[in-house]
Amino acid sequence: MFSQLLRRHITPTLQRRATSIEQRRTTCICAQSLQYCENGEPADVLQLVELDISEPKMNEVLVRLLAAPINPADINTIQGKYPVKPPLPAIAGNEGVGEVLRTGGSVQKFKRGQRVVVVENGLGTWRTHANFTEQQLLCIPHEMDLASAATLVVNPPTAYRMLKDFVPLAQGDCIIQNGANSAVGQIVHQLCKAWGLKSIGIVRNRPNLEELKTYLKLLGASEVITEEELAQKDVATKLCKLPSPRLALNCVGGKNASDMAKLLAAKGVMVTYGGMSRKPVMIPTPALIFKSISFCGFWVTHWMREHKGKPERDKMFAELIEFFNKGKLKGAKHEMVPLKEYKTAVAATLNVKGMVGKKYILEMKC
Amino acid sequence: MFSQLLRRHITPTLQRRATSIEQRRTTCICAQSLQYCENGEPADVLQLVELDISEPKMNEVLVRLLAAPINPADINTIQGKYPVKPPLPAIAGNEGVGEVLRTGGSVQKFKRGQRVVVVENGLGTWRTHANFTEQQLLCIPHEMDLASAATLVVNPPTAYRMLKDFVPLAQGDCIIQNGANSAVGQIVHQLCKAWGLKSIGIVRNRPNLEELKTYLKLLGASEVITEEELAQKDVATKLCKLPSPRLALNCVGGKNASDMAKLLAAKGVMVTYGGMSRKPVMIPTPALIFKSISFCGFWVTHWMREHKGKPERDKMFAELIEFFNKGKLKGAKHEMVPLKEYKTAVAATLNVKGMVGKKYILEMKC
Repeated sequence: MFSQLLRRHITPTLQRRATSIEQRRTTCICAQSLQYCENGEPADVLQLVELDISEPKMNEVLVRLLAAPINPADINTIQGKYPVKPPLPAIAGNEGVGEVLRTGGSVQKFKRGQRVVVVENGLGTWRTHANFTEQQLLCIPHEMDLASAATLVVNPPTAYRMLKDFVPLAQGDCIIQNGANSAVGQIVHQLCKAWGLKSIGIVRNRPNLEELKTYLKLLGASEVITEEELAQKDVATKLCKLPSPRLALNCVGGKNASDMAKLLAAKGVMVTYGGMSRKPVMIPTPALIFKSISFCGFWVTHWMREHKGKPERDKMFAELIEFFNKGKLKGAKHEMVPLKEYKTAVAATLNVKGMVGKKYILEMKC
Repeated sequence: MFSQLLRRHITPTLQRRATSIEQRRTTCICAQSLQYCENGEPADVLQLVELDISEPKMNEVLVRLLAAPINPADINTIQGKYPVKPPLPAIAGNEGVGEVLRTGGSVQKFKRGQRVVVVENGLGTWRTHANFTEQQLLCIPHEMDLASAATLVVNPPTAYRMLKDFVPLAQGDCIIQNGANSAVGQIVHQLCKAWGLKSIGIVRNRPNLEELKTYLKLLGASEVITEEELAQKDVATKLCKLPSPRLALNCVGGKNASDMAKLLAAKGVMVTYGGMSRKPVMIPTPALIFKSISFCGFWVTHWMREHKGKPERDKMFAELIEFFNKGKLKGAKHEMVPLKEYKTAVAATLNVKGMVGKKYILEMKC
């Protein structure tokens, strides 16, 4: 299976190097790695270096990485602006999909050729090879497409947990979210559809608004309105065919979040997972006291850390993978970029334009 | 017992009327009542009228009210600015203590002479007599002093529930609150002391600051600082002998609330129960996402409605009454004012000055 994959992915020149890696399999592997020795702008501080990867230890799994996305948080981590600060020098990247090459003596859960994703944050996935412990990996089926697998561990769990963990929602209940066209936002609408929930999406006004509304409704949104429509006094009338939302998901903050909070049903909850406007969430006192609205935050890194090896985590991934394989979920629009062209991909991530958030995924052809 | 009480409280003139009430006991009672027929300023719209009170129905209890406090929310209700809007004409007042005069045929829990407090909101307590249903009353011991009994149902449960229902606190854990010298704030510090919790109080700067600090520390505060000290960068150093607070109680809002939120431990909760600054609570996104701080509200009226006749409510009142009787709790400073002098008392409540919040309590000498 390893050689089949190589044939599918790599160029003839790189195939020769892969062969030489195969020959060295009992010694060590030379992994191309995007490393940074100090925090700063990725274009300035990232270096593509070759690092020797030793044989896997007893409980380790040697993985040949196939693809790893560039998430905004990865860039913030390199810049040193994120709460996760890996010790330097560090390899960039926090999620990715790969294939098991070899396993340490005590490893039981993984076998050569299996497809795996990295489920722990901060290990460095922007590289061709790495050793991970068993607990840092999750086995996924081969039939899952590479882009969905590479982006399985950050965005889909964020959407999944925010819909599951804050308000008990029954079929027909309604949620509202801003940033509806973000990568997480798109998953939210699809999960709502899969679970029989109504969902209202808020987006910024734009020239191709109707096209975006149609796209999000196809994904599963019950209604899509602009920030301006949300701010209008008659917004509740406009949304009167839908039940008052019991949950609001906020990745914007500022006035947009306050406007969204006004639509929440009594005892509703707003979960914040981003702050794109860079403005705080402002809560009028009466909403807290008399409407019992509460405001929480969600950080997937934290959740994954607290649920390492726990059944809830495995159950979630099983359900998400099933949704992907049945076509009920599709990942964000994406573009595969070879690892060595990382500068272009990082620049494009920092400057995403277009109707819906596009993900740049590094492909580790080596 | 009834006549003994009369002898203790009323003037000779009024005693004659009371005697005439006694004579009419099988017909009806003429109750002096502070009624309003429209919303507006209490001084303009309140009228002291005599209203006939009929014999108690099957499940009713006829109560002679002894004392009822003037809470800010009572004034807001009369003004029509409060979410509770009793149908007009309405009798003002929401809590009070009284004595059972007579009971309806099916009443089993109450007997003549028992001391009772009104536990339901919006029934009108600024009057000399009223019929209540069994469920609207709670029996309290005679030894409880009149002022503590009259103010048992709003402020102490607010403090109690906020300390019990949002964060599981263990002995030695710490909480922080602004408005520490408010009526609720004083109860909070005392309950913390009784339960072995550390508490930090925030107060506004004032000429007699040291006196206030001493007073609140005597009540049970572990530390008392001013709003200005709270806003200083080294505030955490100043409070380093105390554990990071896991719960913040906010009745101010605005910058003060934001400053308090910064001191909260990860996963801490801020509960808002008032908004004296009339400014919203502003939450920086990172506090929500990376520190998992959450923000809720508490409204005692709502809690009491949802826990009508439930064991949690009875358990809470039993514990609070025990604390009052053992001297572990004392109510806010207060002044008794005769019912007919309600205008002075309302004006004084609207213009409270002095070191700690003072409660004006209407005394129903009739």
